[in-house]
Amino acid sequence: MKIKFTKMHGAGNDFLVFDGIHQAINFTPEQWKKLADRRFGVGADQMLVVERSEIDGVDFRYRIYNSDGGEVEHCGNGARAFVKFVHEKKLIKKTRIRVEIMKGIIELNLEANGLITVAMDSPEFEPANVPFDSSDLKPKTEGQAQLWPLEINKKKTLFGVVSMGNPHAVQIVADVDAAPVEIDGPVIENHPRFPQRVNAGFMQIIDAHHIKLRVFERGAGETLACGTGACAAVVSGILREKLISPVTVTARGGELLIRWDGVGHEVFLTGPAVTVFEGEFHI
Amino acid sequence: MKIKFTKMHGAGNDFLVFDGIHQAINFTPEQWKKLADRRFGVGADQMLVVERSEIDGVDFRYRIYNSDGGEVEHCGNGARAFVKFVHEKKLIKKTRIRVEIMKGIIELNLEANGLITVAMDSPEFEPANVPFDSSDLKPKTEGQAQLWPLEINKKKTLFGVVSMGNPHAVQIVADVDAAPVEIDGPVIENHPRFPQRVNAGFMQIIDAHHIKLRVFERGAGETLACGTGACAAVVSGILREKLISPVTVTARGGELLIRWDGVGHEVFLTGPAVTVFEGEFHI
Repeated sequence: MKIKFTKMHGAGNDFLVFDGIHQAINFTPEQWKKLADRRFGVGADQMLVVERSEIDGVDFRYRIYNSDGGEVEHCGNGARAFVKFVHEKKLIKKTRIRVEIMKGIIELNLEANGLITVAMDSPEFEPANVPFDSSDLKPKTEGQAQLWPLEINKKKTLFGVVSMGNPHAVQIVADVDAAPVEIDGPVIENHPRFPQRVNAGFMQIIDAHHIKLRVFERGAGETLACGTGACAAVVSGILREKLISPVTVTARGGELLIRWDGVGHEVFLTGPAVTVFEGEFHI
Repeated sequence: MKIKFTKMHGAGNDFLVFDGIHQAINFTPEQWKKLADRRFGVGADQMLVVERSEIDGVDFRYRIYNSDGGEVEHCGNGARAFVKFVHEKKLIKKTRIRVEIMKGIIELNLEANGLITVAMDSPEFEPANVPFDSSDLKPKTEGQAQLWPLEINKKKTLFGVVSMGNPHAVQIVADVDAAPVEIDGPVIENHPRFPQRVNAGFMQIIDAHHIKLRVFERGAGETLACGTGACAAVVSGILREKLISPVTVTARGGELLIRWDGVGHEVFLTGPAVTVFEGEFHI
């Protein structure tokens, strides 16, 4: 059987996208894993299957698989690739799209400039919900933010701790390119106060509307552009009253734009999605 | 302009192969480099362009580009992908193919079992031609082999030193999976007695017709299946009278079969080439 796919990337996070409407896509975890292999397979961070939704007023649903073959939750970069794909393949004409994902229904928007906006979760700061064990720790207040002092490789460091559906610990650094991401990243990720480990963000503030960011992702190491990491960093900077929405985030893989109206509001992530090539293989 | 390509691999060494007969392939080094990028481009170790030869009695010529964008010499794994490609694309019917490459004309053979045989160079043992600076070093004789003692990370190690068009230093280890390839590999590669650096081979002898091999490649680190490294290891083992041709080489990316009739003869490398997918992109 011949299977068609499109290879895309969103700020360097790369995807194989399959039209699951006009072809049946039912791979085993072993087949997904082999597809994701960059030498023996096609190669990608994640794979995405587009299907019709059976819910009234909802346009599509999609599934995302990790390179280990397991099905995973929604991710901002994948959602952008999805929107670009359904438009390029003429599966839909409208630019505001309602999609069913594992956790519920989300709305995505193709902007006039070709960028795509994704409504992410509302950030969660309650330590127990991150989860973050703050017992016997005294936070420092800065603006509206609570900052948590942790010792990382013998340096006392102040962290904003936030969940964007996944846990993040964000610190401000003077020079992100010189920051010890590879050395401190794994120590932060595995700090005993984060029972589910944590994504470690290192942000350099350029001005109130612009940061540079590197993220050491839980289980993956440093990545080129972590969508939830960009949201967590900007939210943390806004609460610290060092940033003002909207904020441009310069990551190693590209630029993202984050908008947030404050506590209780969802975060909007705008960024690019690029089609690299079309492919097909036999199984 | 739409460009078609085929993604292939030979024992885990992966290639983009372009039909340069029916489409014009003239990329800049920057374009080759971007194509080879595994996230922003298609991704491959090397890229290969098939063209007709203008020489009488020669079927094709091909060019190979590295992931840094530069044009490079013939490689055994690429030659196998080339043969598989011209047959799958029906560019030729015969199974014995004469090809013009940078250094001259080579003959390749598609075997009845689908494997491909490549005639590699005759091995060269003269230290100055490897190049290897053997001055003031006393070799140890084993069978017909000269072995050179070098100190690597404070361990005295005996090396067979051989050129297969590129320099190799091969040692025998008791257990290739436990061998310190990542630690000793860079030290061997940059040993001052190899003025053009060297590829470091670690071989475990299973029996006279079977070895397990890992190669730390010059400028690339450990790779999955180095064709010239397999030839160098087997040639060295035959001269040491520990191996008898033909020899199966189990590398991390797959199996290769090496035949050699002794000093003055060329080495024959037989192995697989696999088509992974067909693709196309716009430039």
